[in-house]
Amino acid sequence: VTPVAPGGTLGIVGGGQLGRMIALAAARYGLKTHVYCPDPDSPAFEVAGRHTRRGYDDEAALIAFADTADVVTYEFENVPRRTAEILAARKPLRPGVLALATTQDRFEEKRFVAGLGIATAPFRAVGGEADLEQALGEIGRPAVLKTRRFGYDGKGQVMIRPETSAADAWRTLRGASCILEGFVPFEAEVSVVAARTAAGEFAAFDLCANTHSHHILDATRVPAGVSAQAEREAVAIAALIAEALDYVGVLAVEMFLVRKEGAEHVVVNEIAPRVHNSGHWTIEGADTSQFEQHVRAVCGWPLGSPQRLGRIEMRNLIGHDADAWREILARPGDHLHLYGKAEARPGRKMGHVTRVFPEA
Amino acid sequence: VTPVAPGGTLGIVGGGQLGRMIALAAARYGLKTHVYCPDPDSPAFEVAGRHTRRGYDDEAALIAFADTADVVTYEFENVPRRTAEILAARKPLRPGVLALATTQDRFEEKRFVAGLGIATAPFRAVGGEADLEQALGEIGRPAVLKTRRFGYDGKGQVMIRPETSAADAWRTLRGASCILEGFVPFEAEVSVVAARTAAGEFAAFDLCANTHSHHILDATRVPAGVSAQAEREAVAIAALIAEALDYVGVLAVEMFLVRKEGAEHVVVNEIAPRVHNSGHWTIEGADTSQFEQHVRAVCGWPLGSPQRLGRIEMRNLIGHDADAWREILARPGDHLHLYGKAEARPGRKMGHVTRVFPEA
Repeated sequence: VTPVAPGGTLGIVGGGQLGRMIALAAARYGLKTHVYCPDPDSPAFEVAGRHTRRGYDDEAALIAFADTADVVTYEFENVPRRTAEILAARKPLRPGVLALATTQDRFEEKRFVAGLGIATAPFRAVGGEADLEQALGEIGRPAVLKTRRFGYDGKGQVMIRPETSAADAWRTLRGASCILEGFVPFEAEVSVVAARTAAGEFAAFDLCANTHSHHILDATRVPAGVSAQAEREAVAIAALIAEALDYVGVLAVEMFLVRKEGAEHVVVNEIAPRVHNSGHWTIEGADTSQFEQHVRAVCGWPLGSPQRLGRIEMRNLIGHDADAWREILARPGDHLHLYGKAEARPGRKMGHVTRVFPEA
Repeated sequence: VTPVAPGGTLGIVGGGQLGRMIALAAARYGLKTHVYCPDPDSPAFEVAGRHTRRGYDDEAALIAFADTADVVTYEFENVPRRTAEILAARKPLRPGVLALATTQDRFEEKRFVAGLGIATAPFRAVGGEADLEQALGEIGRPAVLKTRRFGYDGKGQVMIRPETSAADAWRTLRGASCILEGFVPFEAEVSVVAARTAAGEFAAFDLCANTHSHHILDATRVPAGVSAQAEREAVAIAALIAEALDYVGVLAVEMFLVRKEGAEHVVVNEIAPRVHNSGHWTIEGADTSQFEQHVRAVCGWPLGSPQRLGRIEMRNLIGHDADAWREILARPGDHLHLYGKAEARPGRKMGHVTRVFPEA
């Protein structure tokens, strides 16, 4: 495949902050960008040379969009499969349809990961209340019932504790196809953000330790403070997944850190076929940012160095956290990023702040 | 003056690479941007939420542009004075009309600098051939005859050597109002890139050592390798100039490093009332980039830390230099920036490459 030359156009499906930061990285390399998103208030529209505001089911608009681009990527995993297929038929879609199809269904994703011999929580597909009772019998409680599709930031999931009624849990998710996952008693949540090229070149950023609040990422610390052995295991797993998906671009693999027979190991929780919130620190904290790395991979360019530049603390600005912009700007070393969203709704990711400390 | 809040709009006059990089920095802080430039191929248009392609003499368009912005800045010093006045009458124009008026005429600029008691080359205004003969008699040869206005990258200037005919030199510049400047035998060319806020806060980046090729900046090295005393002198001069201009934003002061009685001193050559090519290294090489710093200053925000992060080498990609993008991308540690210009004309600034080395 011929690399995209600077001056070419990167098509981006999805107009949120991830699309915005991909577009900013593309601009730095002299690329043009075209963002496709139905939402009129898309933050990415503001920094892209072109945008199309049409539905993901608008075949003519999708084709016209693809025709302007040299390569097409996306910033969220819920791009409908049909949308992806229409785009992929016209232009290279990176990552590809397989990565999307595998990761946008939690059951398919878990089956795929387990099929690679990688540890996951125990899981069962659940299509109805009877299935759920049976699965609970096999997996035990506590367990987590999740919709197979369209879940993010804790949406579409319910914890089933010893006292929870299975029928209530089932009704909460309104009869959607579900997956029941055994609860993993973890010591920490970590993620690998890594890139792979079409030629099979692979580069991972250092392992991220993540803390969540109300299921939304709150803070990322790097180094993650885990054993070198566990970090190697985590990166090897991400590489295996990327390889098996014939993945092109940046992906993130979220994992639980668990202790087995005294040693730290990781259990895969979720794959995000895109740049990831836990990789935002790479903008200031690594030689190449995850956004630059993604652009390099999808354009068919060599990957940049993922070398970390110091000890990292990244925290998200959720909702009205962003009102403190003035104080943050005044703190030396605080790198403020705001996404240009008009309304600071509760739970909404408005920006983030990164600090890079010299390493002891 | 009330600070501009994130979500506000920064108006940028001029659509070249400097405007583009200002717009990218503004986006990172959640600001919207509106770029005004008559050139349809303006690189900054591609990354701005809005752009207006009209002449600098189009009063109605200028007013409509100013009305969309919370604050207006510019990326080049040849904004016509009348344009600046129209904008400044509607919205805060930062830096202001005084900075523009002083720096867009080489004679006014030199007179202003000398009036502050700062060393410059000897200079005389030249309005005709007779003036030139007289000025040459006073200043001696070699000397440099420059148009007072619209000079950049060596355009509009001619060296007068012992054998040069004054009449020929005069004719070369086609009768424009000129300034004759004594030639300064310098040891190095250096620049101070610094920011000042409306409240008088001042912060300078470390002194830059610049080399030129055919009058165009070729490379910048930091640290500049000059004595601490000379660097302090250079920064103090930039602070004095910024203060005297009641300057708001980033400015650059280009200087010659000379040796007098065994010690290094600086002689001011030129003031640029804007972000500057010799400050591009700050994107990766400083805690805050010159573009972020400029946005902070013009928005009425506190300045960021100008702390340098390593030893710096920045080199420009001029004309077909940028054709080597693939090799540059493959070199670990080379940070490639391309400006999205379609045509690689000789002498045209297409991009730059920065390397940051750990300091010994």
